[in-house]
Amino acid sequence: MRLARPLEKLISELEKLPGIGPKSAQRLALHILRQAPSEVRELARALVEAREKIRPCSRCGNLTDEDPCWICTDIHRDGSIICVVEEASDVIALERAGYKGKYYVLNQAPRFLESGSLENLNIDRLLRNVVTSQVKEIVLATNPTIDGELTARYIAELAKPVGLRVTRLAHGLPVGGDIEYTDELTLRKALEGRQEI
Amino acid sequence: MRLARPLEKLISELEKLPGIGPKSAQRLALHILRQAPSEVRELARALVEAREKIRPCSRCGNLTDEDPCWICTDIHRDGSIICVVEEASDVIALERAGYKGKYYVLNQAPRFLESGSLENLNIDRLLRNVVTSQVKEIVLATNPTIDGELTARYIAELAKPVGLRVTRLAHGLPVGGDIEYTDELTLRKALEGRQEI
Repeated sequence: MRLARPLEKLISELEKLPGIGPKSAQRLALHILRQAPSEVRELARALVEAREKIRPCSRCGNLTDEDPCWICTDIHRDGSIICVVEEASDVIALERAGYKGKYYVLNQAPRFLESGSLENLNIDRLLRNVVTSQVKEIVLATNPTIDGELTARYIAELAKPVGLRVTRLAHGLPVGGDIEYTDELTLRKALEGRQEI
Repeated sequence: MRLARPLEKLISELEKLPGIGPKSAQRLALHILRQAPSEVRELARALVEAREKIRPCSRCGNLTDEDPCWICTDIHRDGSIICVVEEASDVIALERAGYKGKYYVLNQAPRFLESGSLENLNIDRLLRNVVTSQVKEIVLATNPTIDGELTARYIAELAKPVGLRVTRLAHGLPVGGDIEYTDELTLRKALEGRQEI
């Protein structure tokens, strides 16, 4: 089947995006052709600008257009606690949840199972940061996967000798969840972590 | 919650696209930040180019970067049959299905129920095209909705006095469908349209 070349090109570019299949790419492309040219240019500019201006913060690894990022330079945030996350999207989630400390973003999913090593994770820089600042606690907020757990333990072992408190996000029932449908591992963790009310 | 401004801008632009909610927009934006700058520029360029170069064909209304479009100028296609569709995406679907005639794209969903009129549909131009060419049959391929049916009947009434054969796409069971789960209207149409084997 033949399509106008610029349309074909646009569909193939959109298909490269995650979660966008051929059908959605076609629907998006046809939608874009119906938009005002100024709106399409606005979207194109936003794409290029974000990619050009946004960098990982040289201190914490969070995505930012100023270096160091606003979280690192915010004197009203609690500098005694540092939360280690895998990705910048985790920072967004924790900010929404009201966390007020600092961050350290690994900026890659740990792949111990695949590569047999965690050396690519920039954990040295984390420890250097920690030693030269007033950090008292590291909250390990890597994902509750095997790789995330291994990374958390690895960091914990390196950080404890330095005299830091090292904690891990609690496992348990998701709020609004249903005990009947909770997997047994989560339920066991929820039992183990039960708290006095 | 605060995000780097170019990232916030990109998320809000992506959210304007159909079928992209806040979560998907965030996921897409973070994906884009991980791409090579050249790839992001390629996507941005494809957006702007498609919007700038693609126009409805002045003859048939199909989306094209050359006017008249390649379907209108292709002498190997059957010029005696013209298929009326609502949108350019319907052309893509019919091309995939192997249709070899010409098209007429209304380029808008008919909204008789909403506006009480079908006057905005450029049907005059369709009839002018038809009269000055060798068209013998009009295939009405508007959607099987109430608006689509009304539009089909409206066009049929205008085209029949000109001496044209006017047909409508068959209703019936979708291939691979299940009789048990077919709605009763479709099943009734399939019965009415049953064919000798």
